Amino acid sequence: MAIKEGLRPGGRSARVQESIHSAVRELLETHQRSTLTVPQIAARAGVTPSTIYRRWGDLSVLLADVALARMQPDGEPANTGSLRGDVRAWAEQYLDEMSSEPGRNMLRDVQCSQTPGYCVAIIGAQLQAILERYPDQPGPSVDRLINLLAAPTVFRILFSAAALEVEELHRLVDIALGQ
Amino acid sequence: MAIKEGLRPGGRSARVQESIHSAVRELLETHQRSTLTVPQIAARAGVTPSTIYRRWGDLSVLLADVALARMQPDGEPANTGSLRGDVRAWAEQYLDEMSSEPGRNMLRDVQCSQTPGYCVAIIGAQLQAILERYPDQPGPSVDRLINLLAAPTVFRILFSAAALEVEELHRLVDIALGQ
Repeated sequence: MAIKEGLRPGGRSARVQESIHSAVRELLETHQRSTLTVPQIAARAGVTPSTIYRRWGDLSVLLADVALARMQPDGEPANTGSLRGDVRAWAEQYLDEMSSEPGRNMLRDVQCSQTPGYCVAIIGAQLQAILERYPDQPGPSVDRLINLLAAPTVFRILFSAAALEVEELHRLVDIALGQ
Repeated sequence: MAIKEGLRPGGRSARVQESIHSAVRELLETHQRSTLTVPQIAARAGVTPSTIYRRWGDLSVLLADVALARMQPDGEPANTGSLRGDVRAWAEQYLDEMSSEPGRNMLRDVQCSQTPGYCVAIIGAQLQAILERYPDQPGPSVDRLINLLAAPTVFRILFSAAALEVEELHRLVDIALGQ
């Protein structure tokens, strides 16, 4: 499942998009997010500001697009040999990533996207891949895993004074797996 | 539990804050949120823009403060005579309110607050009030109710293509109550 937002098939357009995404990622390493400007990104990417405005409308949509692309996992979820182990490993990594500073920023940026639903589609695909490894085991639905693991992880990061504790997350994994 | 952010004890300061909050609420009824400006709010509240800048820094913090104040419930959660009934009624109302357009805007605004943790504190106090009605019943913890009911409700609104269905919410209530 690829993120299609803003992507056009073919060479030139995809290369322009990639250079703009790269410019944003590089600038975010050395600049406060709130200080980024479209002309600055355009200069770094070697395009005109109007190229960015034409494609993304404004900066928040571009940042959301970069955030969504970053949410794509680097590879398959860890395979520990058991459903419970795989779900636990996935949930721990998701908690780690989302509660980091870049993770929090991603979560905020993605909400400005025109397609925030991609966020759930991406983690749904990962959880589906885990469930398919254990076809003979009565497993939970993907929606149940999203509601009981991803939702509390993100909600607590965005709206609570303290993120989930790992022990709390493990209890949620047990509840999600009906144990 | 009162929202203290921006509140100063005593008359004048509290009255000024209330007139600014009222101005924001009134303007939001007739104006797009994205078109609101600090000078416009100041004019309506009868204060100078610098009063607003001094107290809130910028518009997003003021909007967050108003959103937090609006999250305060109007009264006690409904009392249906049973723990399950009360939790269900609370969860249904929370889903209704948060998935409305003003609810979504509140959720977005609150994240700009310097104290987004108030959000969880407010709903925690409501859930605690429900649990205290049934002291002889082995009930879940407030955290469990927040993780299993409030979190999926809000996460699905912000990040998924579709909000929770009421049937899904009822299943989550059963899981949260260990049934």
